Amino acid sequence: MKAAILLTAGFEDAEAVIVYDILSRLNIVVDMISCTEKRTVTSYFGLTLLTRITLGDIGDFLYDAIIIPGGPEATKSMAKNRQALSFIEQHDVAGKWLCALCSAAPRVLADNQLLKGRAYTCSGDLWQGRTEGRYRDNDIVVDGNLITGRGLGVAFDFAFTVAEYLSGSAVAGQQQAEHIYHQRKSM
Amino acid sequence: MKAAILLTAGFEDAEAVIVYDILSRLNIVVDMISCTEKRTVTSYFGLTLLTRITLGDIGDFLYDAIIIPGGPEATKSMAKNRQALSFIEQHDVAGKWLCALCSAAPRVLADNQLLKGRAYTCSGDLWQGRTEGRYRDNDIVVDGNLITGRGLGVAFDFAFTVAEYLSGSAVAGQQQAEHIYHQRKSM
Repeated sequence: MKAAILLTAGFEDAEAVIVYDILSRLNIVVDMISCTEKRTVTSYFGLTLLTRITLGDIGDFLYDAIIIPGGPEATKSMAKNRQALSFIEQHDVAGKWLCALCSAAPRVLADNQLLKGRAYTCSGDLWQGRTEGRYRDNDIVVDGNLITGRGLGVAFDFAFTVAEYLSGSAVAGQQQAEHIYHQRKSM
Repeated sequence: MKAAILLTAGFEDAEAVIVYDILSRLNIVVDMISCTEKRTVTSYFGLTLLTRITLGDIGDFLYDAIIIPGGPEATKSMAKNRQALSFIEQHDVAGKWLCALCSAAPRVLADNQLLKGRAYTCSGDLWQGRTEGRYRDNDIVVDGNLITGRGLGVAFDFAFTVAEYLSGSAVAGQQQAEHIYHQRKSM
């Protein structure tokens, strides 16, 4: 199993890294991908990550899951990034897992008609005034191949959910949650 | 208020970044500091961070808090890093907040006689066989100027605790926890 986390300037620091960490712990290979022309990407709070690849390096390869973290500037900019949107849509059409956290579902997916009527959650009131997709007032929402999470404080549960759907097993996730002292909320 | 997170190769990815993120959200300036000669530091799961400074750049400046994340290789290596140990001890002697997560308290502090009898917590059974300091079976332990956390799954609560002691106020922390949908455990 191989997953991609899509980064652009202003990505929410811990949302991206928690998902990377938990998937890695569950033996899923994760690529942090810069969606710009440079391999360095600076986060919302000013951390600079040196990624191994940019979106332009990937070609036709399809990941088993792609994950879009939040961060206000990042999701606004990714919503206009044609290359990233095309990459996301190709994965969705192929039935791969499409995973969006915080502001990513309304800004990147809804505003580009990529929710296609599916249920989703997101942070704050970003669902208001958006008619694409069906907002649900839950921490984590799974609808078909779309997994969405409300925000940073549920990033662990979001990551464990993504890992479980990717692996098809909840046992390893629960063992790892106990190992790191993470108490999962009932969903 | 200014805090430093001490990084060396193999640092636990999300432990470092969650603390960085939460302290930044609470308006505490945080420096990620490379404790090697290079500004790039690679995490436990292979993320490469480009820090703005190395320990050698700091001189005599004292931070209000220093934070040591876990990561097995990082804490083993920091336990033998004379420059980092001297930096930690200078801050402790000056009464600054000394904050250690996961394996950092037993490996870096206890094994260098830096706990000085204080109560602490850590991951797994690393407390066993170590006689320096008094292990407590809790998620977060505060004793004097020492704040310790058990591991990754309690990193949010650890970070909020550090921020509250630094700022002297719990109100902003609670508001931010609600803003990001983090449910704090009772401590």
